[in-house]
Amino acid sequence: MVKPLVSIIMGSTSDLGVMNQAAQFLEDMQIPFEVNALSAHRVPEKVMEFAKSAHERGVKVIIAGAGGAAHLPGVVAAYTHLPVIGVPVKSSNSIDGWDSILSILQMPAGIPVATVALDGARNAGILAAQIIATGDAELSAKLIKFKKELADKVAAANKELENLKFKYIV
Amino acid sequence: MVKPLVSIIMGSTSDLGVMNQAAQFLEDMQIPFEVNALSAHRVPEKVMEFAKSAHERGVKVIIAGAGGAAHLPGVVAAYTHLPVIGVPVKSSNSIDGWDSILSILQMPAGIPVATVALDGARNAGILAAQIIATGDAELSAKLIKFKKELADKVAAANKELENLKFKYIV
Amino acid sequence: MVKPLVSIIMGSTSDLGVMNQAAQFLEDMQIPFEVNALSAHRVPEKVMEFAKSAHERGVKVIIAGAGGAAHLPGVVAAYTHLPVIGVPVKSSNSIDGWDSILSILQMPAGIPVATVALDGARNAGILAAQIIATGDAELSAKLIKFKKELADKVAAANKELENLKFKYIV
Amino acid sequence: MVKPLVSIIMGSTSDLGVMNQAAQFLEDMQIPFEVNALSAHRVPEKVMEFAKSAHERGVKVIIAGAGGAAHLPGVVAAYTHLPVIGVPVKSSNSIDGWDSILSILQMPAGIPVATVALDGARNAGILAAQIIATGDAELSAKLIKFKKELADKVAAANKELENLKFKYIV
Amino acid sequence: MVKPLVSIIMGSTSDLGVMNQAAQFLEDMQIPFEVNALSAHRVPEKVMEFAKSAHERGVKVIIAGAGGAAHLPGVVAAYTHLPVIGVPVKSSNSIDGWDSILSILQMPAGIPVATVALDGARNAGILAAQIIATGDAELSAKLIKFKKELADKVAAANKELENLKFKYIV
Amino acid sequence: MVKPLVSIIMGSTSDLGVMNQAAQFLEDMQIPFEVNALSAHRVPEKVMEFAKSAHERGVKVIIAGAGGAAHLPGVVAAYTHLPVIGVPVKSSNSIDGWDSILSILQMPAGIPVATVALDGARNAGILAAQIIATGDAELSAKLIKFKKELADKVAAANKELENLKFKYIV
Amino acid sequence: MVKPLVSIIMGSTSDLGVMNQAAQFLEDMQIPFEVNALSAHRVPEKVMEFAKSAHERGVKVIIAGAGGAAHLPGVVAAYTHLPVIGVPVKSSNSIDGWDSILSILQMPAGIPVATVALDGARNAGILAAQIIATGDAELSAKLIKFKKELADKVAAANKELENLKFKYIV
Amino acid sequence: MVKPLVSIIMGSTSDLGVMNQAAQFLEDMQIPFEVNALSAHRVPEKVMEFAKSAHERGVKVIIAGAGGAAHLPGVVAAYTHLPVIGVPVKSSNSIDGWDSILSILQMPAGIPVATVALDGARNAGILAAQIIATGDAELSAKLIKFKKELADKVAAANKELENLKFKYIV
Repeated sequence: MVKPLVSIIMGSTSDLGVMNQAAQFLEDMQIPFEVNALSAHRVPEKVMEFAKSAHERGVKVIIAGAGGAAHLPGVVAAYTHLPVIGVPVKSSNSIDGWDSILSILQMPAGIPVATVALDGARNAGILAAQIIATGDAELSAKLIKFKKELADKVAAANKELENLKFKYIV
Repeated sequence: MVKPLVSIIMGSTSDLGVMNQAAQFLEDMQIPFEVNALSAHRVPEKVMEFAKSAHERGVKVIIAGAGGAAHLPGVVAAYTHLPVIGVPVKSSNSIDGWDSILSILQMPAGIPVATVALDGARNAGILAAQIIATGDAELSAKLIKFKKELADKVAAANKELENLKFKYIV
Repeated sequence: MVKPLVSIIMGSTSDLGVMNQAAQFLEDMQIPFEVNALSAHRVPEKVMEFAKSAHERGVKVIIAGAGGAAHLPGVVAAYTHLPVIGVPVKSSNSIDGWDSILSILQMPAGIPVATVALDGARNAGILAAQIIATGDAELSAKLIKFKKELADKVAAANKELENLKFKYIV
Repeated sequence: MVKPLVSIIMGSTSDLGVMNQAAQFLEDMQIPFEVNALSAHRVPEKVMEFAKSAHERGVKVIIAGAGGAAHLPGVVAAYTHLPVIGVPVKSSNSIDGWDSILSILQMPAGIPVATVALDGARNAGILAAQIIATGDAELSAKLIKFKKELADKVAAANKELENLKFKYIV
Repeated sequence: MVKPLVSIIMGSTSDLGVMNQAAQFLEDMQIPFEVNALSAHRVPEKVMEFAKSAHERGVKVIIAGAGGAAHLPGVVAAYTHLPVIGVPVKSSNSIDGWDSILSILQMPAGIPVATVALDGARNAGILAAQIIATGDAELSAKLIKFKKELADKVAAANKELENLKFKYIV
Repeated sequence: MVKPLVSIIMGSTSDLGVMNQAAQFLEDMQIPFEVNALSAHRVPEKVMEFAKSAHERGVKVIIAGAGGAAHLPGVVAAYTHLPVIGVPVKSSNSIDGWDSILSILQMPAGIPVATVALDGARNAGILAAQIIATGDAELSAKLIKFKKELADKVAAANKELENLKFKYIV
Repeated sequence: MVKPLVSIIMGSTSDLGVMNQAAQFLEDMQIPFEVNALSAHRVPEKVMEFAKSAHERGVKVIIAGAGGAAHLPGVVAAYTHLPVIGVPVKSSNSIDGWDSILSILQMPAGIPVATVALDGARNAGILAAQIIATGDAELSAKLIKFKKELADKVAAANKELENLKFKYIV
Repeated sequence: MVKPLVSIIMGSTSDLGVMNQAAQFLEDMQIPFEVNALSAHRVPEKVMEFAKSAHERGVKVIIAGAGGAAHLPGVVAAYTHLPVIGVPVKSSNSIDGWDSILSILQMPAGIPVATVALDGARNAGILAAQIIATGDAELSAKLIKFKKELADKVAAANKELENLKFKYIV
């Protein structure tokens, strides 16, 4: 049976719309992953058990998303030495996302959380892949290809600018 | 042996300069208390044990201060049904206190933290006393007296304004 | 006749949509309460009378919600030694809630207001119950049960994640 | 005996360093004034009495300065129909002044406070003089002269630029 | 022919929806007023002429509303010794109103602008009336009546709370 | 064949709705221009080639718009000595535009970017024309005419205020 | 006699410490310039005369610095079609510079101000040189040389890193 | 010869005081590293060469620190598929660090930067070690030991609280 290399958790299933984008990227890269909702405030002991045992189950990177006073990524980081990626979520109980960002980003010295942009779950997925790729040449090659495709999409998108109708456009 | 009614905890002993003001007020009101430093990120299991057992030890109110991504009050609140008062501390690793404030204030529905002003530990002590006074008539009388003294101090301080030297002052 | 233990007030009846959530929790916990709209700016003397007499009427905790330059919680706290819980409301005349939050949170030393999250009236209700429970073992047991149910709801909500369709999900 | 036309109040005598500048301008304009420290939170009933009676004592404008959760100007405005000028003070318990500004500026419809810049007590004094001058031609003439002097000072200050030593300055 | 006592100006006719509320209050108080759109940036010389001559035409108070980099109130204040009330408008080119507020509020010493809340044009109208009332006993009486009506409206609005259906409401 | 004097670039074609306004002004002024989408992060080498060669192709001013962590204007400025105008775009991945503004505005000493208002692409077009006009008397005359028309439009718009129906309007 | 190509103005001579850096760069590039202090609020008519006539005197670019409610750059831009570069100054009456930045940056459509970083007067001088260089090949060559020197300085500064003493540094 | 596994770069040698803390942690963990100053704006081509070749030289993680409009981490991430850790630096040209944070954190989808706290270089070093440890069991064991030592230090620091002298402390 395949073991997950990346574990995606979120403070509430209402964060799934955002966190799904991390899952999608891992799927595209064919990296085994798992997904759970684990509130740092509602089921703190489950979070502890999860975080302490993740390493033993073979997980290599944890992606944790949360909104408002977003303690989940930091609380998980307190219990594990695995790299933890934090995704600030602009949930309904958030003040324009500032609370989520600062609660995740401003961790004290000793317990880092790798924070990505507000609602930036896709980048969390990419970052997780980049981390695993530091020890996986095949995945590394996939990421190089992915970066090339990003550039190609820009070229394609630029075509739409050719339809601009101005007399003085050159 | 006297049991503490209020437990003061802080994320780091560097918060003591601020948190001391809560202790001082409890001392003035003759309310038994205890003081501990308990980092939510460095000793998370100690925090859990502390929070889960506080109620059993007779503690009635918890005051928790922390700076930066200040998770301590919220993490404690996750493990207890006692009222938790949060003190945002403008520590050296804080962005002008905004991170501390938002990390403590913006708790999700279900797990409240009673937040006071930035570095407002004295008010945390007063609030703890007010909470205990809801079931203690003697303490209630002390608080009424305390409020009266606050007003008297204003009258005394106003004397200093009599020394203002302006020709058109009336 | 039953006397209210908690008094909910709000700066304007337009805050009712938010403040109603505090009432609902008290109802669930079977704690007698009252609800009034009392503007600190439009009926200041009524606010004074209310705040000065609340203690005598048996009220143990006051929950006050307001938006914009939200003075109501602080003004009430000036007149009473009861614990006052402040709910910043993101009303239509508020700048994304920042004015409500800061007007309530940043009280001077001597007159605390226990501030909860923006629009966090449900947590205000819970906090009021926690305060009353410090002297009421039966209510304390209800709150412990409530916390357990919070955790159970997370487990139930997690079921929805089982429907995620990814090939590499484990 | 001369009656004060302007009443300067402040939340704490620690605001005197800032509020003094309002007094100085009134002194320069020979407008009778009074100065008091009146905390909205520590002596709320004194504030009420003051605000309700100011009009009867001949006061025409009230200048109120306060820091942090600065309720004083708004609370005074609640009790009087006189124009109230609010001075946000960047006191030691303020978050860079943002709390003072928003607590004073964001008053609800019906109860205006004329807010000036952070620590802008001199402008509060000028504004009070401008208000009184709407019914006082002599004072009006003084203010016109004052504005001319402001311009003259700029011309004088510009002399200092003549000392700049650059080869390519013209 | 009746001369205007209050002059309402705005940076753009798109601000009329907000500024109209100032006009409505003056109408209610039967204070003669005028309304103009005058952009500090598009017709700066017209603004100068307007501001310099307003006093001579009998205007006693100027209300100026603007959004974004809202220079209009300050530019007008530079040219007149009349009290200028500034209304920050949350226009479409504004960053949540912060730019409008800071551009109007933070005037340098010597040139005050009496700033009201974001989109607070009604309060600007009330403040203008309060200023004129400092020399007009009849208007003063109207304002006292207006304040009483504000309080009455609160009482009326409170009736709606009687319909709340809770079992534990008292 | 006519060479472009102004080059408009944007981080993503999704910025076109905003950036189009710069193109429109150049069209109105009959200034030859070009439009490209060039992501600083997705096609960094294309951006380098573009920026290094723009001067040689006869381009005199570059207008660069971007949202979020908006690096494009600064990266282009790093490779050219031409004036670079930066347009912060409030894109979907931006925190109310604050990230876009600060990423463009706060360039280090040595590498300026001329920043305009959030979504202020029209002003970027005008600024580009003003720069070119410093060496083009004919364009200079057009800009003087444009400024006059701005003023005329204000006069026209003011007509709409004549329809206001108030009894006390003068 | 040489005519100035760049005119540096500032709201107050207290801004000279910052604005001096613009002068220094123009001096280094041998571009004739002039320096004046001109307050938009204290001598508004002088500002108008200055701005209207600058073009006729041969000035090609205006650099305007100001703090607080920083209207000077925008007011100047209202009266001229020359490019105006705005420098937000973190003066003593500024709220951490936010008021200066927003008052200068957020100009309405039609009247651009090319804003540089807070206290970024050196970049304002460079930008002015870049603008003049669009019509001056010799200056253009100087700027290319200047950019090269910037890079050389980085190489020189890097030498200091060679002194780092770590065992695991490579 | 040993090859560096981590490459630390910074926008300016003035960031060394902060970035040094990342180096120190790598030294403590005996992870080979290199340190360079590479300005994204002053030597952009060197940054490109560095970023494109880092992977080939055996580097596994890049740590990039910068202040103000901090483009360095994002620009490096554009050229490599290695994980890039960004450290926002509160440099002298930064607005309280907000610009550095937002310029690094808010990267667009496709190009993640793992952002740590303001001036949080020590956490960047720890995160780099955690990433390398995903493929290095020995380093993994060191990190587990490091976490244990963090907890021990808390216990030691708590001793200092035993010296608190209050009568009611328990």
